[in-house]
Amino acid sequence: MSLDEIDRIPSLLPQWVESSRQYCINGKVASYIPELSKAPIEALGIHLIDAQGHSMSAGDSDLLFTMQSISKVFTLILALMDNGEDVVFDKVGMEPTGDNFNSMLKLELVQPGIPFNPLINAGAIAISSLIAGNSPIEKSERVLNFLRVLSNNRSLAYDMDVYRSESETANLNRSMAYFLKDNGVLDGQVEDVLDIYFRHCSISVTCADLAQMALVLALNGKSPETGETLIPRRYVQIAKTFMITCGMYNASGEFAIQVGLPAKSGVSGGILTMVPGRYGIGIVGPALNRKGNSIAGVALLETLSNEFDWSLF
Amino acid sequence: MSLDEIDRIPSLLPQWVESSRQYCINGKVASYIPELSKAPIEALGIHLIDAQGHSMSAGDSDLLFTMQSISKVFTLILALMDNGEDVVFDKVGMEPTGDNFNSMLKLELVQPGIPFNPLINAGAIAISSLIAGNSPIEKSERVLNFLRVLSNNRSLAYDMDVYRSESETANLNRSMAYFLKDNGVLDGQVEDVLDIYFRHCSISVTCADLAQMALVLALNGKSPETGETLIPRRYVQIAKTFMITCGMYNASGEFAIQVGLPAKSGVSGGILTMVPGRYGIGIVGPALNRKGNSIAGVALLETLSNEFDWSLF
Amino acid sequence: MSLDEIDRIPSLLPQWVESSRQYCINGKVASYIPELSKAPIEALGIHLIDAQGHSMSAGDSDLLFTMQSISKVFTLILALMDNGEDVVFDKVGMEPTGDNFNSMLKLELVQPGIPFNPLINAGAIAISSLIAGNSPIEKSERVLNFLRVLSNNRSLAYDMDVYRSESETANLNRSMAYFLKDNGVLDGQVEDVLDIYFRHCSISVTCADLAQMALVLALNGKSPETGETLIPRRYVQIAKTFMITCGMYNASGEFAIQVGLPAKSGVSGGILTMVPGRYGIGIVGPALNRKGNSIAGVALLETLSNEFDWSLF
Amino acid sequence: MSLDEIDRIPSLLPQWVESSRQYCINGKVASYIPELSKAPIEALGIHLIDAQGHSMSAGDSDLLFTMQSISKVFTLILALMDNGEDVVFDKVGMEPTGDNFNSMLKLELVQPGIPFNPLINAGAIAISSLIAGNSPIEKSERVLNFLRVLSNNRSLAYDMDVYRSESETANLNRSMAYFLKDNGVLDGQVEDVLDIYFRHCSISVTCADLAQMALVLALNGKSPETGETLIPRRYVQIAKTFMITCGMYNASGEFAIQVGLPAKSGVSGGILTMVPGRYGIGIVGPALNRKGNSIAGVALLETLSNEFDWSLF
Repeated sequence: MSLDEIDRIPSLLPQWVESSRQYCINGKVASYIPELSKAPIEALGIHLIDAQGHSMSAGDSDLLFTMQSISKVFTLILALMDNGEDVVFDKVGMEPTGDNFNSMLKLELVQPGIPFNPLINAGAIAISSLIAGNSPIEKSERVLNFLRVLSNNRSLAYDMDVYRSESETANLNRSMAYFLKDNGVLDGQVEDVLDIYFRHCSISVTCADLAQMALVLALNGKSPETGETLIPRRYVQIAKTFMITCGMYNASGEFAIQVGLPAKSGVSGGILTMVPGRYGIGIVGPALNRKGNSIAGVALLETLSNEFDWSLF
Repeated sequence: MSLDEIDRIPSLLPQWVESSRQYCINGKVASYIPELSKAPIEALGIHLIDAQGHSMSAGDSDLLFTMQSISKVFTLILALMDNGEDVVFDKVGMEPTGDNFNSMLKLELVQPGIPFNPLINAGAIAISSLIAGNSPIEKSERVLNFLRVLSNNRSLAYDMDVYRSESETANLNRSMAYFLKDNGVLDGQVEDVLDIYFRHCSISVTCADLAQMALVLALNGKSPETGETLIPRRYVQIAKTFMITCGMYNASGEFAIQVGLPAKSGVSGGILTMVPGRYGIGIVGPALNRKGNSIAGVALLETLSNEFDWSLF
Repeated sequence: MSLDEIDRIPSLLPQWVESSRQYCINGKVASYIPELSKAPIEALGIHLIDAQGHSMSAGDSDLLFTMQSISKVFTLILALMDNGEDVVFDKVGMEPTGDNFNSMLKLELVQPGIPFNPLINAGAIAISSLIAGNSPIEKSERVLNFLRVLSNNRSLAYDMDVYRSESETANLNRSMAYFLKDNGVLDGQVEDVLDIYFRHCSISVTCADLAQMALVLALNGKSPETGETLIPRRYVQIAKTFMITCGMYNASGEFAIQVGLPAKSGVSGGILTMVPGRYGIGIVGPALNRKGNSIAGVALLETLSNEFDWSLF
Repeated sequence: MSLDEIDRIPSLLPQWVESSRQYCINGKVASYIPELSKAPIEALGIHLIDAQGHSMSAGDSDLLFTMQSISKVFTLILALMDNGEDVVFDKVGMEPTGDNFNSMLKLELVQPGIPFNPLINAGAIAISSLIAGNSPIEKSERVLNFLRVLSNNRSLAYDMDVYRSESETANLNRSMAYFLKDNGVLDGQVEDVLDIYFRHCSISVTCADLAQMALVLALNGKSPETGETLIPRRYVQIAKTFMITCGMYNASGEFAIQVGLPAKSGVSGGILTMVPGRYGIGIVGPALNRKGNSIAGVALLETLSNEFDWSLF
């Protein structure tokens, strides 16, 4: 942490959270999973940890929320660790789509009909089918345990209300999964794969959990506590690159220009991001913009990145 | 039957079947339902009945095959009889798509996300959900009984091998059905609706059965035996119009120009067509062209229509 | 003309026009060609001629308007007469698209990148390039003369204000034409072809002119006055078939079900239609529905077709 | 330059060029601009300059080629300098498309119909219309002079053969430009804008010229010779971000993962890239892969990036 930032972040963060919070009224809480619509529309919280373990937080940083699409970064990493690059990139591509995260257009229009990248819904469903394990339950357990290790939080658990709500209403994800099955992309039973997917989307976290996971990525896969390699460096690199090109849905390009950090958002309003080598950051703000990202969370990150010149570019 | 045709059809039909049969080598038997791939690639048969009950046939007219998409004409009619036009056209549109029969593009791209017409797969699945009945089985029974009446064949039955083969492998239809569910088009459970759909596609017929059903349409809904109204005239009109604009998949426009008769094809190689007021015609030829229509069957109909000036236009 | 119709049409037509006219307030006059926006939004007129030369009219049947897309039927016919079917259908397909009349999607998405049919803009531009003649001006003259013969109106002429207005603002048509040029569909200079296209769209007519042209088609190409063959029967058949499948833009399917007659509309509010063997009909009503067809004109045709059972199906 | 790299690059570069050159046989020289097809298919060259002015080169680094799409990076920067961010991003978006560089799909499908980003053809054409100047010629002169300054090469000039070849055959770009005009994106005459576009695509360079321009970007806009600010830092940041997300056509995502450097390719086989703060790099290799990037050039950059751990991620 640069001297300048050490001095300024703790005192400035609360006021930046409050000024960013005002954007919430222009956003909407996700409603396509009924259970998510209960989230507080005006909430905004942030938690930040540096490589030495210092942390600071502001706003509603204690709010519990589900990881949703943020979990896709880590299932991608686990699938890479389980299968290697060749197997994974036989099932998903490496390109941003420019389409909505739940679009099926390119699956039909662009041969060979594999998802364009692992962070859109179709891609993440394909990735869920690549997690090692003898049963869907074992595979889900492996994902949960991986996230418990990364977040250094042994009590990480599913929000079963969200899980059931999503599982019951996820007809579009089901549609996508059967399309993938037809295209020969999915191994295993469609409902089994979807169950793994719904479960990892429903893991309940706080901003601190996200910040801790992000810090591991910021440190190129090493545990901030022990220095142990939790994730091979190359897979962190792959994940961070995807977070730049595809992490903020079809607003990733704009986010790269305005913020310039690897990040992944979820429709619960969470954002996981990092300043490589320095900070892990978790944010929550359930009010979403048109593209599905936390409207106040993005505003807060723009302020931080501009103020401290955090862009990688 | 005009004097000219009375004289000429019986003597010419066998040689026209043989000359059309040669196109089979340029076609392919449908393989996406594994059971269908067993059909004889060189088969071609035709059965023709006139309004007075005279019939003639040629080629492999005794071959048994499943109705597949041909059944969609009759589930549309039954859904209209069960619900009326307003309810039906709230769930499906009236326009040809220009896309493949199993395309999902327009469901995503064109609001309100209802199938463009009842003869593409998505539309026919939506129609299956509109058949009256207290249970999926009762609904399926009503479709089967309706076709038994129209074909005047009480022993019409499912080909259970095809039914199971389709049900097990129909991931693209499942994908479509869940997409429709998400768009609010489908009532009821997706798998229940699909079961109705798979069953009516699997009804086993001969060319004579198709010709008899077609004759009812050619007579504007009246039984050729009793003169009784089996289908209201308006619903026959709707069905015949769709058969002109959408009946031959995305080759319907070409078929209208080259043949000019209302027709519906199936991937089993069947074609049901008619000369309004005069003939009901059933054809089978499992070798399909690129668009999914019987390659030899279409050639045979072009010959007949040109020779006898049958085009409606 | 059936006895019933002879008696009823003249007395009923004025009241049907007035009751249909009320739909005008739900429509909009075309504005994409600035000059067209000057048309009277509440106008509705009809002219009908039978095979014996009896005619009747009602409403604003004297209104002058430009043919716009209605001219595409006749450039198709002339291109067929100049080149034959093989050459024409090497440049345009036979299928409805389900897309807007000025959509370019399928030109990019569907190989070989030729327009799906001759009645969408892209197709009509391709057809304009096939008209015989030693210069663009000579080609345009041939189209105009052909329509003068068919309409039996030697004074048919361009509306030069509309021509200039369209020529200056037709960027989307220019875009399409250059796309076709790139796809190898267009012979000749793009601007020359567009000039032919803009000119035939700008030919000024009354309902009576349209009715007269339509009557030639209704009589399978024969002059109602002399019985002379003005158009070969086969090309009339092709034209009428396209009018059923593609004549009313992407509302052709609905029109076929609700009216059931071959028809072609233009964004000036004109509709040319016919009852084969019996009537030629011209309609004008500049208020358009969402799909670009005369809103009151379509309503009037529904009334007529239902009342007299005119549907071909 | 790290000690390790100082030692290793000069000795290794020639052999890496030779081993990468073998990929040329799997590529194709661009043919859609006829003049480009004359390029030597087996050529591969590289030039690299560090911040202190040391340079090294290998292979066919003296080959002259046209900038093509590489020029888009600099017209974007000049348009930003001329107009500011607000005006520029009112005309083009910030998102990768996932489509081919000359696709028009999203212009029709996604409102408001502006190009998704400034590096696809449609976006670069829109950017060309934003260059300041009193005439098309003056605008083109300003672009050329800007590139002369950045490349520190006063003799940079157009390849008039390529310019004429492109101008005569660029029907797809014309189509795009008229589409943009229709969507209200382009100011000025379409042909004037296209002339600016064709000219900057036709500027003739060597690898050393590209490397010099890239070095200015690598130094955040400062002249490597004088330290003077040639481009404001923020506009360099914007350009570098776009080079990561959209610089290598619809293979940008893969390039980000495999190489991880800001880069821009052209269909002439050129690649401009950099190691921020350290090197400017120019590459040429006319044999292109399916996505339109130099097949051997990409291979060479993968080797360099992996060997020296150059990825930003």
